[in-house]
Amino acid sequence: MTELRKEKDSLGFVEVPANAYYGAQTARAVENYPISGMRAHPQLIRAFGMVKQAAAEANQELGLVEAPRAEAIRKAAQEVMDGKWNAEFVVDVFQAGAGVSFHMNTNEVIANRANEILGGKLGEYAQVHPNDHVNYGQSTNDVFPTGMRVATLLALETLYPVLDKLAATFEAKAKEFHDVMKSGRTHMQDAVPIRLGQEFAAYGLAIEKGKKFLTLAADSLRELGLGGSAVGTGINTHPDYRAKAVAALSRISGQKLTPAADMRWAMQSNACMADVSAALRGIALEVIRISNDLRLISSGPNTGYAEIYLPSLQPGSSIMPGKINPVMPELAAMVSFQVVGNDTAVAMAVQAGQLELNVMMPTMAYSVLQSITILANMLRQFNDRCVAGITANAERCAQYAQSTVSLATALNPYIGYAKAAEIVKESVATGQSIISIARSKGLLSEQEISEILDPVRMTEPQYPLDAAKERDKKVKS
Amino acid sequence: MTELRKEKDSLGFVEVPANAYYGAQTARAVENYPISGMRAHPQLIRAFGMVKQAAAEANQELGLVEAPRAEAIRKAAQEVMDGKWNAEFVVDVFQAGAGVSFHMNTNEVIANRANEILGGKLGEYAQVHPNDHVNYGQSTNDVFPTGMRVATLLALETLYPVLDKLAATFEAKAKEFHDVMKSGRTHMQDAVPIRLGQEFAAYGLAIEKGKKFLTLAADSLRELGLGGSAVGTGINTHPDYRAKAVAALSRISGQKLTPAADMRWAMQSNACMADVSAALRGIALEVIRISNDLRLISSGPNTGYAEIYLPSLQPGSSIMPGKINPVMPELAAMVSFQVVGNDTAVAMAVQAGQLELNVMMPTMAYSVLQSITILANMLRQFNDRCVAGITANAERCAQYAQSTVSLATALNPYIGYAKAAEIVKESVATGQSIISIARSKGLLSEQEISEILDPVRMTEPQYPLDAAKERDKKVKS
Amino acid sequence: MTELRKEKDSLGFVEVPANAYYGAQTARAVENYPISGMRAHPQLIRAFGMVKQAAAEANQELGLVEAPRAEAIRKAAQEVMDGKWNAEFVVDVFQAGAGVSFHMNTNEVIANRANEILGGKLGEYAQVHPNDHVNYGQSTNDVFPTGMRVATLLALETLYPVLDKLAATFEAKAKEFHDVMKSGRTHMQDAVPIRLGQEFAAYGLAIEKGKKFLTLAADSLRELGLGGSAVGTGINTHPDYRAKAVAALSRISGQKLTPAADMRWAMQSNACMADVSAALRGIALEVIRISNDLRLISSGPNTGYAEIYLPSLQPGSSIMPGKINPVMPELAAMVSFQVVGNDTAVAMAVQAGQLELNVMMPTMAYSVLQSITILANMLRQFNDRCVAGITANAERCAQYAQSTVSLATALNPYIGYAKAAEIVKESVATGQSIISIARSKGLLSEQEISEILDPVRMTEPQYPLDAAKERDKKVKS
Amino acid sequence: MTELRKEKDSLGFVEVPANAYYGAQTARAVENYPISGMRAHPQLIRAFGMVKQAAAEANQELGLVEAPRAEAIRKAAQEVMDGKWNAEFVVDVFQAGAGVSFHMNTNEVIANRANEILGGKLGEYAQVHPNDHVNYGQSTNDVFPTGMRVATLLALETLYPVLDKLAATFEAKAKEFHDVMKSGRTHMQDAVPIRLGQEFAAYGLAIEKGKKFLTLAADSLRELGLGGSAVGTGINTHPDYRAKAVAALSRISGQKLTPAADMRWAMQSNACMADVSAALRGIALEVIRISNDLRLISSGPNTGYAEIYLPSLQPGSSIMPGKINPVMPELAAMVSFQVVGNDTAVAMAVQAGQLELNVMMPTMAYSVLQSITILANMLRQFNDRCVAGITANAERCAQYAQSTVSLATALNPYIGYAKAAEIVKESVATGQSIISIARSKGLLSEQEISEILDPVRMTEPQYPLDAAKERDKKVKS
Repeated sequence: MTELRKEKDSLGFVEVPANAYYGAQTARAVENYPISGMRAHPQLIRAFGMVKQAAAEANQELGLVEAPRAEAIRKAAQEVMDGKWNAEFVVDVFQAGAGVSFHMNTNEVIANRANEILGGKLGEYAQVHPNDHVNYGQSTNDVFPTGMRVATLLALETLYPVLDKLAATFEAKAKEFHDVMKSGRTHMQDAVPIRLGQEFAAYGLAIEKGKKFLTLAADSLRELGLGGSAVGTGINTHPDYRAKAVAALSRISGQKLTPAADMRWAMQSNACMADVSAALRGIALEVIRISNDLRLISSGPNTGYAEIYLPSLQPGSSIMPGKINPVMPELAAMVSFQVVGNDTAVAMAVQAGQLELNVMMPTMAYSVLQSITILANMLRQFNDRCVAGITANAERCAQYAQSTVSLATALNPYIGYAKAAEIVKESVATGQSIISIARSKGLLSEQEISEILDPVRMTEPQYPLDAAKERDKKVKS
Repeated sequence: MTELRKEKDSLGFVEVPANAYYGAQTARAVENYPISGMRAHPQLIRAFGMVKQAAAEANQELGLVEAPRAEAIRKAAQEVMDGKWNAEFVVDVFQAGAGVSFHMNTNEVIANRANEILGGKLGEYAQVHPNDHVNYGQSTNDVFPTGMRVATLLALETLYPVLDKLAATFEAKAKEFHDVMKSGRTHMQDAVPIRLGQEFAAYGLAIEKGKKFLTLAADSLRELGLGGSAVGTGINTHPDYRAKAVAALSRISGQKLTPAADMRWAMQSNACMADVSAALRGIALEVIRISNDLRLISSGPNTGYAEIYLPSLQPGSSIMPGKINPVMPELAAMVSFQVVGNDTAVAMAVQAGQLELNVMMPTMAYSVLQSITILANMLRQFNDRCVAGITANAERCAQYAQSTVSLATALNPYIGYAKAAEIVKESVATGQSIISIARSKGLLSEQEISEILDPVRMTEPQYPLDAAKERDKKVKS
Repeated sequence: MTELRKEKDSLGFVEVPANAYYGAQTARAVENYPISGMRAHPQLIRAFGMVKQAAAEANQELGLVEAPRAEAIRKAAQEVMDGKWNAEFVVDVFQAGAGVSFHMNTNEVIANRANEILGGKLGEYAQVHPNDHVNYGQSTNDVFPTGMRVATLLALETLYPVLDKLAATFEAKAKEFHDVMKSGRTHMQDAVPIRLGQEFAAYGLAIEKGKKFLTLAADSLRELGLGGSAVGTGINTHPDYRAKAVAALSRISGQKLTPAADMRWAMQSNACMADVSAALRGIALEVIRISNDLRLISSGPNTGYAEIYLPSLQPGSSIMPGKINPVMPELAAMVSFQVVGNDTAVAMAVQAGQLELNVMMPTMAYSVLQSITILANMLRQFNDRCVAGITANAERCAQYAQSTVSLATALNPYIGYAKAAEIVKESVATGQSIISIARSKGLLSEQEISEILDPVRMTEPQYPLDAAKERDKKVKS
Repeated sequence: MTELRKEKDSLGFVEVPANAYYGAQTARAVENYPISGMRAHPQLIRAFGMVKQAAAEANQELGLVEAPRAEAIRKAAQEVMDGKWNAEFVVDVFQAGAGVSFHMNTNEVIANRANEILGGKLGEYAQVHPNDHVNYGQSTNDVFPTGMRVATLLALETLYPVLDKLAATFEAKAKEFHDVMKSGRTHMQDAVPIRLGQEFAAYGLAIEKGKKFLTLAADSLRELGLGGSAVGTGINTHPDYRAKAVAALSRISGQKLTPAADMRWAMQSNACMADVSAALRGIALEVIRISNDLRLISSGPNTGYAEIYLPSLQPGSSIMPGKINPVMPELAAMVSFQVVGNDTAVAMAVQAGQLELNVMMPTMAYSVLQSITILANMLRQFNDRCVAGITANAERCAQYAQSTVSLATALNPYIGYAKAAEIVKESVATGQSIISIARSKGLLSEQEISEILDPVRMTEPQYPLDAAKERDKKVKS
């Protein structure tokens, strides 16, 4: 049986595990919120540690929390930042509105640890009190929006290099597959030839652009309401506190951060979280699209497109022997679906603010941080275990490049769309190739045909043969 | 350092922790999918145990898996159902398409445990092989949809009583608050009087109806594709297997289950999961609405509606002393937002099926089971720690009932809408009460006024006073 | 220039086009809400006409609105139901909360027309007043939820036969394609053989089930709050009014309708609209899935799966001659996306109710009625111009059935999963067929091989050959 | 009866209304897609006119379409841009994948009009052919993504000034309400005082920030794939065409536009549309939040917060006389819900691309352009008819400022959180004011009390009274 100690808060006495670094209000929260079993994201804990350290530093400089106390708080906060007390953050991700419970969990852990540093005992707050000292000049209402933004910025730092690497891998594959000619497909139908490398380059750029937009969206997280305290008016803060605290937080976190132009806005509006979530969703939508393409062109081996081979990662079926599935693209889609779903939850939460505060922040924090984490982990595996190992079935691709009925498109400038369409219809009906029908029609010279209908020539803009102008003249006369 | 053993699957050798009950394919999955850190929902493990037991029983009866082997499988499956091996289910919720990895995790744990029961050693499958025996006549493609449906049904059994209890609590409160007169509000503006009890009764019914629709939606889970094996054709199954296996599963799970009219449909379509998810969303939407109402009418103490008191559960602010927040309604909204978000993820997954299979099932299973769990846990707390303890501020409510300008509505049948509107305008402009203006206008007798303008009388349909007909005559003449 | 007349409402004078059947409040709404240019769905107008007729009938029977006036109202309402005055319903779909403006538009049109019937002039309401008579005992707050529900039920009647027809067409195609053998595909990879007819039968059932769930969801629309008037208490209604009015509405609309158990609930909760919307979404999700499949298996002609042919409806490309696209499945997906999007809007609206009313009903009505209409129109075209005309490329399908590497699955019961997997690997590596490798291994007799590896045999459960038991014995010993 | 003419396309003969400027393929589309009754957004028509003009100019310069023909095309395109032929754009918004039908509608209208300009007759394309000349070097696959992006940019130009104006109105109100003291509220509970002007300033900034993010998102629309033609390889285009065409389009549209770094990407990826849609959603979420606040603080007149008055726009109820509703905030929320819903549709469409093309563009174009239009129209009304006319109930606000129990927060630095909490509890229990209890406790001097508890002083950061340090010393000792 756990030994207990008694603590008191403004509602009365509460029992707390004797060796817990958290206190009364955290203990109440554990009782109140046995919802999901999931606890705060490590980056949220880390960010809250940073905020507390920055606030203590500012208040110390301003003479509002005196040195030994403030220094103990800063030291304890540093340990929180370092992840040393993660196990003491025991509040469920679904909890009190605005994250009051998680915030008090932070205040209590830091207070207890600071007291301990100063020689005190757990649960005795004479020297360092969670509200009066750790939380001096602060409120959940400015600390949580701030901590959530900083946590998101920190978490994004883990996603960015994964996105860069994936974009680079696609680009490397683009070079590798530069000479693999294949048929393009639009509407899932034969289209004109394209290089497999061209497709992969576009995938890489899609990821790169997704990252770029994400960084833009993330900039909206950098304006902070810290210092607004209870309702954004800065009650109980020193006029110089806010600038000092945000500067300290910026230095501590290594993130470019600024005091918001309007603290009320920075506390009541969380549109920035919806923006970041939407940018994550944007990446997810692209990942779904790209992973669907990879599943499509790797379909086979004998009954599919079979243009590329994905690395074999595991037996694909419990019943069909020898089957290998595109597990990484499938994983990619599933994780992306969850990111899209999380984005809906975030949007619901963001619109639900009321007056001076949006109490739905814990959902936003949970959803956005989860999305970042699962995207980063998934894309790392997707890159390392799938994209990086893709090889081309150049022979199959070449067959498609030669056989697509849209080769006839290249004839348009010379014989017109209508005549070209007739050649295609004949080809589909008879099975004869476009080139042989074109030849048999005698509309163009042999040299023209072989030049015009060369798939390689179709993969970039070309100066028209002189024939074009001739046709144009003919058509108009 | 963990001791390892070597296992072999169709892709080659894999190292597995020496004392693990899972095997090669699970070990590959652990390597491949370090995504979220979350493992399968216990109800999913339980349901897969049931499916495996049912299949073994059917195959044993049909002489396809012989008795000692089948009995060992069934015994091992029972232990899985009992939660004894939950720690051996180590695959991330985000994993291989279709849940092949989780399914193989199940096959491997059961195979190892069955071998152990038969005196064999972990990692040696001569007696009971994960694919050849545990999975006899099965495929991820019929087992996962089946297991996911059964798990959902089982999980719902934990939600239903919570919904019933919450509805009952609201109804009990409706009786308790029957005599608490207040003002109705529509468009957030003064409307005609209503009983606080009438409001709570409606909340109770909303929950009851939500549950009813959920049970209807859940019925769509009861038609199973088990026996369809690889693509819904039942390859490698005995013609009698399917009926036997589903009957056994129905008995084992205690759920009414039937073989689907069409196994292909039951394997490729997961619309039932979207239906259930939507029904959960429907409840979530109602919970958001109701919890918003509770937050609104408990707003105060001095600057809000202050019609009801919610139980005090924890200090409400790290800075504002003595503040008490509506934490349970806030929690209710946040959890509900996540349920709505999960529903989006499910919808994305459900539409993404291709041909014989929808490989996105793991996302569906994760999202729906999480939604059920967090809804059930949240609503339990919301009921016990909030709704059950709500008390009324009858005095404040009565003030509203007397002061709402919409009292004038009751005058319509007697003096017409236009004249009644003038009285309201005068009341708003002068601050005089509706009753005193009505009196001063001399349009009705004192007795008529006191009868007509009695708020209590307005809370249900009434036979009109004779005056109504008189007015009607006057108007038309 | 339009001639104008002056009307007065409780806010003052308003100019109304001289020959308009609507009046002051509608004219205000036209000024206030120039938002989308879209007007009410015809079914909403029709349903409101029905509600007004039913209310007038009930009030007439109860002696509250006397005969000539009530009869004129009923006659005018009939004309509204018949669509005669649709052009007079001029309020934008985005308008006043709760649809007050659309409701008053209805009251005004009926009042003016009823006055005209009684010999009066437009804009003079002495005989029939929009509020005092047309709206007697009614409120937007009970009429709009009622009208919206009835309109939805009426609109659904246009969707049901389209769903039935589409399901029937898929089933007819299932019969037609019964003998077309092809390869199944799971994870987009070669799976075991299946009949094309089996696939189409599953599509048909998916539509049928979707419709069934929709009808269940629609049942939740049948409990009406009509009679609740302003806040669900029935103020200004006769105790017998509600039952009479709902009975009349049921008869008039031809829909099974009942008075809700609790009028407060039926007015403040619109979960039923979310349920119906979700059921529409469920169908949309299936349509996306099925249409994606059709696009996939009709891909080609030379670079795709090419298993089926869709009817040619239009030239497919402005540049690629002879290209034919799967335009109907593409249309199907796009319309379905909008249905999914509308469902999000509905969910947002449904959760936004407050106290006695959800003022967001106009959005719900707009979104749900649009979804029904575009689904019905799209599915009709999809059925008539696509599904009904699909033909099979039986030859190509047969090639797939013979060449899929998953034929080896049928060997499992005889040689075990591991040995079968080796055969597949060899086939993929060498290009040799499964059957020839199986033969060369000498594991089974020629007759066994030809029997076991016959694709047709794989399309349904089969009694195992005796060999199975032999293997089973061998394995275990 | 409409007179008809016969036209021929690659599928055969079609009847077209004799005086229609559109041709065969448009006529097919009218038959194929009778879905919603809604036609293309005027900005989409305008943008397509611009693209066609730009392409013709580039091809003329390059000598690929000779002068008289190209000039006729450019002139006809100018008329399309000017809206002169809007009535000839008859294709439903739900149509062929990729918008082939709308694109051909454009080509046909321009071809017919250009022929007419050159003296030809409708339906005879000898001089100007829709495919060979109007569409020279173009494909739906590069024209539609380009036209959709340009149309979105053009439509946004109509939204930006509305957002600017709304932000400015909020800021003007912020100044007007600077001296209106009220109580802040967090969690819907009494919080510390705030100025009404501070709240309005934050609303203004929220709109300003929303606009800023929208302009950032819109920048992603500026990289165009025009010149990619069929699959992004630029087949049938001159090497100089792309740069010339995009430069011309930039000049014609007045928008900064550049050729995309990778044409394949710009044609297959529509993440930019999801980004813009998400930014619109972000604004919608803020508008929902702000409009909810306005409804809350204008609730009343006698039973609500009654802090502000909204302009009266129309009678609020068909039954409750004199009722005035917050119709504009309600409208604002409803339109915003639709914007959120449309965003879901866009996201679904964006992820559904396949290989060289995303055929779901028509849904994206419809949803995004509708969202822009209804947002702009709604916000204009919301600004002009609501926000601009808001007045404050300063007296009521002042009462709240004096009575909020959170005044005690200001005591924290002097007496500590715990003692301050006791004062609040006593105030709530006894109804005594915070100030009088503080006084009776004798913890602070009268002057300190009046200074510390002055609401005005609480609306910004303050230098602490000396007492603070004293307390701090006491606490620690």
